[in-house]
Amino acid sequence: MKLGVCYYPEHWPESDWPNDARMMREAGLTHVRIGEFAWSRLEPRQGVYDWDWLDKAIHVLSSAGLEITLGTPTATPPKWLVDAHPDILPVDENGHPRKFGSRRHYCFSSATYRAESSRIVEALARRYGNHPGVTMWQTDNEYGHHGSDESFSPDAILAFRGWLEARYADISALNAAWGTVFWSQTYNRFDEVDPPCATVTEANPSHRLDWRRFCSDQMCSFNQLQVDIIRRHSPGRAVTHNFIGDFFRLDHRDISRALDVATWDSYPIGLLSESQSTEEQKARWLRAGDPDFAAFNHDVFRACAPRWAVMEQQPGPVNWATYNAAPAPGMVRLWTWEAFAHGAAFVSYFRWRQAPFAQEQMHAGLLAPDRTPQPVLEEVRAVGRKAALIADLKQEKADVAIFLDYPSLWQHEIQPHGNRVGPLEPSRTVYAACRRLGLNVDFVFSDTPLDGYRIILVPSVPILSGETCEAFKSSGALVFATALTGSRTDCGHIPAGLAPGVLAEAFGVRVEQLETLPPFEKIGIRINDQNFSGGRWRETITTGADVRARFAKGEPAWVRNGRFQYAAFWPGGDLMVELVKRLCGEAGVPCRDIGPDLRLRRAGDIQFAFNYGPGRQDLRQIGAPDEAGDYLIGAPDLAPHDLAVWKTTPAN
Amino acid sequence: MKLGVCYYPEHWPESDWPNDARMMREAGLTHVRIGEFAWSRLEPRQGVYDWDWLDKAIHVLSSAGLEITLGTPTATPPKWLVDAHPDILPVDENGHPRKFGSRRHYCFSSATYRAESSRIVEALARRYGNHPGVTMWQTDNEYGHHGSDESFSPDAILAFRGWLEARYADISALNAAWGTVFWSQTYNRFDEVDPPCATVTEANPSHRLDWRRFCSDQMCSFNQLQVDIIRRHSPGRAVTHNFIGDFFRLDHRDISRALDVATWDSYPIGLLSESQSTEEQKARWLRAGDPDFAAFNHDVFRACAPRWAVMEQQPGPVNWATYNAAPAPGMVRLWTWEAFAHGAAFVSYFRWRQAPFAQEQMHAGLLAPDRTPQPVLEEVRAVGRKAALIADLKQEKADVAIFLDYPSLWQHEIQPHGNRVGPLEPSRTVYAACRRLGLNVDFVFSDTPLDGYRIILVPSVPILSGETCEAFKSSGALVFATALTGSRTDCGHIPAGLAPGVLAEAFGVRVEQLETLPPFEKIGIRINDQNFSGGRWRETITTGADVRARFAKGEPAWVRNGRFQYAAFWPGGDLMVELVKRLCGEAGVPCRDIGPDLRLRRAGDIQFAFNYGPGRQDLRQIGAPDEAGDYLIGAPDLAPHDLAVWKTTPAN
Amino acid sequence: MKLGVCYYPEHWPESDWPNDARMMREAGLTHVRIGEFAWSRLEPRQGVYDWDWLDKAIHVLSSAGLEITLGTPTATPPKWLVDAHPDILPVDENGHPRKFGSRRHYCFSSATYRAESSRIVEALARRYGNHPGVTMWQTDNEYGHHGSDESFSPDAILAFRGWLEARYADISALNAAWGTVFWSQTYNRFDEVDPPCATVTEANPSHRLDWRRFCSDQMCSFNQLQVDIIRRHSPGRAVTHNFIGDFFRLDHRDISRALDVATWDSYPIGLLSESQSTEEQKARWLRAGDPDFAAFNHDVFRACAPRWAVMEQQPGPVNWATYNAAPAPGMVRLWTWEAFAHGAAFVSYFRWRQAPFAQEQMHAGLLAPDRTPQPVLEEVRAVGRKAALIADLKQEKADVAIFLDYPSLWQHEIQPHGNRVGPLEPSRTVYAACRRLGLNVDFVFSDTPLDGYRIILVPSVPILSGETCEAFKSSGALVFATALTGSRTDCGHIPAGLAPGVLAEAFGVRVEQLETLPPFEKIGIRINDQNFSGGRWRETITTGADVRARFAKGEPAWVRNGRFQYAAFWPGGDLMVELVKRLCGEAGVPCRDIGPDLRLRRAGDIQFAFNYGPGRQDLRQIGAPDEAGDYLIGAPDLAPHDLAVWKTTPAN
Repeated sequence: MKLGVCYYPEHWPESDWPNDARMMREAGLTHVRIGEFAWSRLEPRQGVYDWDWLDKAIHVLSSAGLEITLGTPTATPPKWLVDAHPDILPVDENGHPRKFGSRRHYCFSSATYRAESSRIVEALARRYGNHPGVTMWQTDNEYGHHGSDESFSPDAILAFRGWLEARYADISALNAAWGTVFWSQTYNRFDEVDPPCATVTEANPSHRLDWRRFCSDQMCSFNQLQVDIIRRHSPGRAVTHNFIGDFFRLDHRDISRALDVATWDSYPIGLLSESQSTEEQKARWLRAGDPDFAAFNHDVFRACAPRWAVMEQQPGPVNWATYNAAPAPGMVRLWTWEAFAHGAAFVSYFRWRQAPFAQEQMHAGLLAPDRTPQPVLEEVRAVGRKAALIADLKQEKADVAIFLDYPSLWQHEIQPHGNRVGPLEPSRTVYAACRRLGLNVDFVFSDTPLDGYRIILVPSVPILSGETCEAFKSSGALVFATALTGSRTDCGHIPAGLAPGVLAEAFGVRVEQLETLPPFEKIGIRINDQNFSGGRWRETITTGADVRARFAKGEPAWVRNGRFQYAAFWPGGDLMVELVKRLCGEAGVPCRDIGPDLRLRRAGDIQFAFNYGPGRQDLRQIGAPDEAGDYLIGAPDLAPHDLAVWKTTPAN
Repeated sequence: MKLGVCYYPEHWPESDWPNDARMMREAGLTHVRIGEFAWSRLEPRQGVYDWDWLDKAIHVLSSAGLEITLGTPTATPPKWLVDAHPDILPVDENGHPRKFGSRRHYCFSSATYRAESSRIVEALARRYGNHPGVTMWQTDNEYGHHGSDESFSPDAILAFRGWLEARYADISALNAAWGTVFWSQTYNRFDEVDPPCATVTEANPSHRLDWRRFCSDQMCSFNQLQVDIIRRHSPGRAVTHNFIGDFFRLDHRDISRALDVATWDSYPIGLLSESQSTEEQKARWLRAGDPDFAAFNHDVFRACAPRWAVMEQQPGPVNWATYNAAPAPGMVRLWTWEAFAHGAAFVSYFRWRQAPFAQEQMHAGLLAPDRTPQPVLEEVRAVGRKAALIADLKQEKADVAIFLDYPSLWQHEIQPHGNRVGPLEPSRTVYAACRRLGLNVDFVFSDTPLDGYRIILVPSVPILSGETCEAFKSSGALVFATALTGSRTDCGHIPAGLAPGVLAEAFGVRVEQLETLPPFEKIGIRINDQNFSGGRWRETITTGADVRARFAKGEPAWVRNGRFQYAAFWPGGDLMVELVKRLCGEAGVPCRDIGPDLRLRRAGDIQFAFNYGPGRQDLRQIGAPDEAGDYLIGAPDLAPHDLAVWKTTPAN
Repeated sequence: MKLGVCYYPEHWPESDWPNDARMMREAGLTHVRIGEFAWSRLEPRQGVYDWDWLDKAIHVLSSAGLEITLGTPTATPPKWLVDAHPDILPVDENGHPRKFGSRRHYCFSSATYRAESSRIVEALARRYGNHPGVTMWQTDNEYGHHGSDESFSPDAILAFRGWLEARYADISALNAAWGTVFWSQTYNRFDEVDPPCATVTEANPSHRLDWRRFCSDQMCSFNQLQVDIIRRHSPGRAVTHNFIGDFFRLDHRDISRALDVATWDSYPIGLLSESQSTEEQKARWLRAGDPDFAAFNHDVFRACAPRWAVMEQQPGPVNWATYNAAPAPGMVRLWTWEAFAHGAAFVSYFRWRQAPFAQEQMHAGLLAPDRTPQPVLEEVRAVGRKAALIADLKQEKADVAIFLDYPSLWQHEIQPHGNRVGPLEPSRTVYAACRRLGLNVDFVFSDTPLDGYRIILVPSVPILSGETCEAFKSSGALVFATALTGSRTDCGHIPAGLAPGVLAEAFGVRVEQLETLPPFEKIGIRINDQNFSGGRWRETITTGADVRARFAKGEPAWVRNGRFQYAAFWPGGDLMVELVKRLCGEAGVPCRDIGPDLRLRRAGDIQFAFNYGPGRQDLRQIGAPDEAGDYLIGAPDLAPHDLAVWKTTPAN
C-alpha cells in the first residue's frame, strides 16, 4: 500500500526538481515514475544521447528517498526517427500511414521499430539498470491505445502470414478453420492471405478472430523484447506495463506473464463520460465515476499477475473526455482506498504537476501548472496517514468467480448480435450485479485454478474449451451461464452439436436457434409466479434439465442440470441481480442488495464500505458496527463520497 | 407454383448429398439452386478445373428428381485471380481498391474481369448446358449489392467516357445537357470527364444522373455477356438473375429484357430491421415483416419479365441485420403463399442447411447446421400439400397502376429535397395506401401498355417523357400525381415552362416554387370542410383547373383537370389513404380500408387474405364466406400470422 | 442604401440581356455583379481568351445605367487548367486530391495556382479596369467555403514550414511555443514539421492553432495578390470580397484591410436549417430566419472595413440546406431594411434569374427560370421606393461592444471544452442577449479604439494580450467577461499565473480549475436571493474582488473588481439576458427585454423595429409613437414579418 506519482522532470527547470521531490515526500509519496515519452530528450539526434538530465533527475529523486519506476520511451518515437524510417508508422485500413504529431505512432510489426526500440531500451537499461534508486521498469505506455493495436503495414501483413503459417502449418488447415469454401475464399498459399480489411462486405469472422489474436500476440512479443533486455541489464527490478482501463483488445493475462506487476491507468470520470451508460447514470455519478468501473478493472488485473497496482490515478478533471467534471471532494481518497481494498500494491497519481502546454494541458495534476498544490493533495496526505494503520491487507479467494476469456470478447466484437453496448457489457453487467449484492468477486481465466469457488458465473462467453468445462465440473462450484455461452469453437464456428458445444452435456441443453432483439423488444420471463423481463438475446433450447423459468409461451428459459445452470436469454441489469441473488441462496453465499451507490469490499478481516452516491448511507443496516469508535476509518453514518473501514469479527 | 431451395453441396461431405436430396423431395421441394460462389472449387488454380464434384452433385440431385438451377460463380472471383489481375477489383471514390475477403469484389467495367467471367461461364455452360437436370441458369448473384454498383477504377473511367461519347456524340451536347456553363465546368473533350466523385462540394446533378445511368448500363451489359454465352451453349433453358429486394440502383426492367425469369431475394424481417420505419412499426411487425415490403417487390418484378419468382426466401433469423428476430411461426408459410398469390412461378428457400462457418454462419436454413430439420420445414411441407389444390392462379390486370421510373428514383437520390427516408419512399407510400384499401396493384413502366387501367398513380416521378404523357391520356385512366412529378427533363433540368413540364397542359398546373420542409412542419390542407395535413414538399402553383383542396391561406393544393389530378404537396401516410380512397370512388374502383395488418390479393377468382398483425381478423367483415367449409385454406376467423383463401363468386 | 443583384449573362442568350437590364432598373436595382465563375467562358483553352461576350454584357448593363461589380473567376479553375496542373487541387488530410466537378477546387498555397490566378486577374483587370461602367471588383468567391480553407498539399506543407520559420526564426522557439518536450514532439529543423493531420490521437493544440493562423494568412495573401493587380490596373474602383455568413475560419478583419468594402452573403433560412438551434427555434423561425443571425454578421462586417454591404441576399428558397423553406412574404423586404439599419452600403440579391440547370437549379432568383418575375420582386421594389425617403442613415458608436478575436475562436475549435454548439456560440449568445434587450451593439477587435463604450462584453475569449487589457482599462467601460477568458497565451498555453492571465489583476481573479459539464448538468447560481442556473463551464476561482453571485456551496461565481466583472461559469441564454440587463443598469445604458421575436436598431435618430415572430407586436409598449402618421414606414401595430421605422426625438 504505497503511494506514488508520475513525473516529467524534462518538462520543468532543473531547479524545480529538488523542491518537487521534497514536496512529494512530504505528501506521503514514496514512488515516482519518470522517463516515458522522453526519447527525443534522451536521443535528440540519431545516436547522440543526452543522459545528463536524466542522471541528475534520478539522483535528485532517489536522494530524496523516492523509489523510481523508469519508463521506456517507445510510445513516442522522435520525428528524426520517423523521417529516417517511415516504415515504422502504423498504417490504417485504407493504406494510409498514421502520422507523427501525437503518440503511439508505430507499428508493432515493424522490424525496423523493433530494432530501434531494442536499441533505446538497451541503452537505457545499461545505463540505469543497476542504479539503486531505480526499483521498477515500465515498458512503453498503454499498448493499443488510440487504435494502435491494429496496423495494416507491409510488415504487419508479412508478420500475419508468418503467424498463420506457424498456427496452421498447412494452408488446408487454415481453409478448414476459416471455412473458406464459403464464397470462394479458398487460399492456395499463406502468402495470398491479407488482413481482413477494406472488404466489400463483412470479412470472414474466423479470419477476423485470428487477426485479433495476431494483433494481441504482436503486442505481447513487442513487450517481451523489452522485458528480456531489461531483465538482462537490470537484475532484481520489477517490470510492469501500464494498461489502459476498460480496453480489452489485447490479452492482459497473456502479456502479464512477462511482468512482475500488472498496472493500469484509472480514470473513472473520463471513462464514465465516454461510456454508453444512460444519461441518468452519467448524471448520478458525474463526479464520482461509475461505482463498478474501477473495481472491475482492479479485479481483472489482480487475476493477471502476482502483483498489480494503479499506475495512473485520476486526481482531478482530465482533458480528453467530451465532458470533464472535477471529482467530488473525497473521491480521490475513496478511489485510492478502494484500489488498496482490492489489493493494489501501490497507487500512483497522474500527474504531479499540470503541464501548461501541449495535448494534456487541461489534465489536472496534484499541483497546478504554477506549482500551487491543489486541494486534492490533502486527500493524498490523508490516505498516507491512515495507510500505515491498516497494514498488510489480505486478499482471500472470493466465493464468486466470473469467467473471462479474451478471444470470446473479440468474438463478441466480430459478431455482436445486436449488442450495441459493446463486447465487455455481459461481463460488466454480471459483475455489477455481484457488487450490488455486496460480494467480493474474482475473475478467472482458463488457466486459473477453480477449486474453492462456490459460484462460477459465465457471462455469455462463446469460446470455451473442453478442459474448461472439465475444470468447471471438478471445481464443485455452481456454474451459471447466459445465452451464447459455448456458441463458438476455438476457430469461431458453430459447434458440431450446436451451442453450447462442449458444455451441452453439462448444462443438458441444446440451442436450436438464436434471436437477436432490438432494445424495444422485451422478453417476458416467468420464474415461479413472478414476471421478469430480459432482452437482446433469446434462444430456443431443447433440454432434459429442470426448468426453473419459462418464456411467455412456456418454452424453457432457465434450466438447472445438477450444479450447472443455463439462462437462454440475456437478463439485463435488474433481472441479473435477481438471478445472482437466487444463485447465492442456493450456493450458501451470503449477500444482500445494497442499492446502486454503496459498495463493499472485504480484505481478510477488514471490511471496506464506499459511498459513490449523493446521499448518506447508514452502515448499521448492513451489519456494520454501531459505534464510530469501532471504525478504523469513518463511522456508521457514511457521507456521500466517503468511506468507512472496520474490522469484522468471525461471527460477523 | 413450385418450391425450391438453395444448396451448396461443396460445403458438405459428398456422403450427405443423397440424404439431402431425398429430404428435399420429401419436403415437397422440386427445385434446387447450386453452383453460385463456387469458382474456387471449380477452378482452384488458373486453368485447372475440377468438375468432378459438381458432376456428382448434379447427378445426385437430378437423379432424386430435382430440377437444377445452376448459378454462374462470378460474384466471387478467387484469390489467385485477384492476385494475378488486381485491376478487376472495384475502386472506391477515393481511389482505394475494395479488397478480396468477402464477395462482389469486382468492377463491372473491368475488361479483364469481363474476359475472365466469360471464360468461366463458357466453361460451365459447355459442360452442363445440355445436362437434362439443369433446367435454369442464374447469372452471378445480387448485382450491385454492398455498393458494388459503383466503381471508380481506371477501366470504369474509360468506359464512362465512352458511354458519354456514345450518348452525346459531341462534347457541346454534353455541356448543354449538364449545364456546364455553370461554375466553369465546361469540357473541351470527352476524355476530360471524370466520374462525379471527391468533388469539393456537390457534383453537377446531371453529371450524377448520367453516372447512375452508366452504372446501371454496365451491370446490364455485364449480365448480357453471360446470358449470350449461356444461350449459346444451353439451348431451351431459362435464364434468371436474383435481384436484391428493395434495391433500385439498377434498372431491373432493363436487365430483365435479357432474362426469362426475374427473380428476387426476399428477407422481410432483415429489411424491416434496417429500414427507416418507425420504432412502432418495427415493434409491431418484428417477427412478420412489413406487410407491404415483400408484395411491393413481387409486384415490381412481375412487371419486369414474362415470369418472376422468389429465388431466396427467408426461412428463419438472418445474420446481417442489426437485430435478427425469428419469423413468427406461420410466417414462412404466409410469405410463400403471398408470393404465389402475386404470381410467383416458384419460391425457393435460402438455404437448405445452415453453414456453421464463415460470414453467414448465423443465417438460418431449413436444417440446422447439424442437419436437424427446423420446425419451419413443416411449414414448407404444408405449403406443398395445398399447392396442388390451388392450381394455376390467374394474374389479371389490376384496376390500379403505379408508374415507376428508374432515372426518376436516381434523381430523387441526387436531389432528395429533404426526403431523408429515401428515393423509394413516395412509391412505397402510395403502394401501401393501395394495399390498405385492399387493392390489387400493378407497376407500370414507360413501355408498359396502359389500356385497361382505371387509375394511374404517379408518386412524385420527376422525369416523364411526352410519350408517357400521351400514353396517360390515351389510357382513359384517372391519372393522379403528387408534387415534383414532371419537375425534371431527361437530362435533369427544370423544364422550360417550369414543372410539371410536359404534363403541364394535362394537369392544368404550373409550379412556381417548391418548399422542402422539415418533419416538424406540417402543412394544413382543407378538403371541403375537413382538415388534413401533409408535409415535406409544398409547391406554389398557378392553375386553371378545378381546385379540390386548398392550403391554409387558400392557395390551390389539389386540382382536377378532367381525368388528370395533381397534388401540390406530399400527402404522407394517412392522407394518402384518404386521397386514394376518393380517387377509387371517382373511378368506380371498389375499395375499403382494411387497417394496417390485414392484406388481400385476388388472383383470378381466388381471393387471398394475409394477417400480418398480432390480433385476429374477422374476414366476414370484408365480405368473405361465413363458413369454414367455403375456404380452400383457413377460415373466416383469421389468426395472427395466418392466411385464408377462398373462391370468389362473380357477384362478390 | 443601394440595391443590386447578381447576374450571370453567360447562362442566358445574349438576346435576353437588354430586357434583363431594363427589368433590373425598373425594379429599382442600380448595381449588378457579374463575371465570377466565368473562367472557362473567358479562357476556353489555355491562352485563348474570349472577351467578346463579356464586352457586350458590360456594355448592355452599363448602358442601362447599372453599376457593375466585376468578379474575378478564380473560385472555379477550368478543367483544362486542372488537367495541365493537377498540383493546383487542394489535398485532404489523407493525401487525396479534392477533385474537379464543383467549385473551390484549388489550394491557396499552390504556387502554380497563384501564378495562374494572377494571370487571369491581370488579363481581366487590364481589359476592364478603366471601363466607366465597372465601379467595383470582387475577388474570387467565398474564400474557405466547403472546407477549402485547409489543404495538405505538398505546396501547403512547404508554405507552412516557411510560415513557421518566418514566425519563429529559430526551431527552439517553435519547440518552446508548442511545448514539444511533451510526448517527444521536439523538432530539429523546420523542414521536419508537417501540418497537424492524420495523427494517431489529437495533435498538439499549439501546432493546430498555428496551422489555423497559417491557413487564414494564406487566404489573406492570396487575396492580396489579386487586390494588388486590380489596384494597378483599375484605379479608383472599390475592391471587395464576398465572405460567407457565419464562417469564422478565416480572419475577416485581417483580409478586410486590403478591401474597400467588406461584403457578405446572407442566407438566413438556409443557415437556420443547418444550425444547431433547437427544433423549437427552427420551427418558430422556419420562414423568417433566426432574428439575430443576419444582424450578428452585419455588425461583424461593419467592424471590419470602412464600408460593408450584403453581396448576396437570399430572395427565396435555396437549394443547399437539408430543408429549404420559402421566406415568409415580407421577409426579403425586412432583411433588406435590417441590413440598411445596420449600415449596409448596398444589398444585392442572389440571383437575378433561377438557373434551370446544374448545382443551384433549385436556388430561387428574383425571376423564375422562365423569366417570370417572382412575387418577391415586388418587395424589392417596395424597398427601393422608400429608400430615397430615409436618406443617409447615421451609424453611431453603440454603448455596448462585444470583443471578438479570431485566434480565440480557433482555440475554442481546437479545445472546445464540451461546447458542442461551436466556437462562435459564446459570442452569439451574448449578442442575442443584447438584441433581446433592444440594444445597438458594436463588435470590437484588438485594434479597435475602445473609448466611448460604456460596456465591453468579453464572451469567453481565451487569447487576450496585455495591450488589450490596458485598452480595456483606459476605455473607462464596464468590462464583463465569462469563463475561459484569458485562459490561453498567444501560443495556446495556460498562462504562467493561471487564467485569466494578463487580466488576472484587473478582474482580481485566479482560476484554480475548470470543469466542463454535460448539457444535463446545471450549475446553481445564487444572485442575492434569486436562483439561476448556468452550465457547460464552471471554474473554481480565488478572488479578492466583491462577490456578486455564488455557486451552490458558496464559492464565488460572479465577481466585481471596480469596473471589471468576471463570471466563472457559462450563463446560457436566459441568465445571460439577466446579467447583461444588470450590467446595463450599472452602466446607465437603457434597455428593456423585448422578447424573442421583436428586434430593434437605431441609426442616428432613426429607429427601426423588426418583427421576426408569428404574432403581432404593439410598438407603443416600447415607447414608439402612438400615431401611424408619425412613422416613416409602418405603424405601431406591427404585423408578423413586418417592420416599422420612425424618427426618435431627443427626449425619446
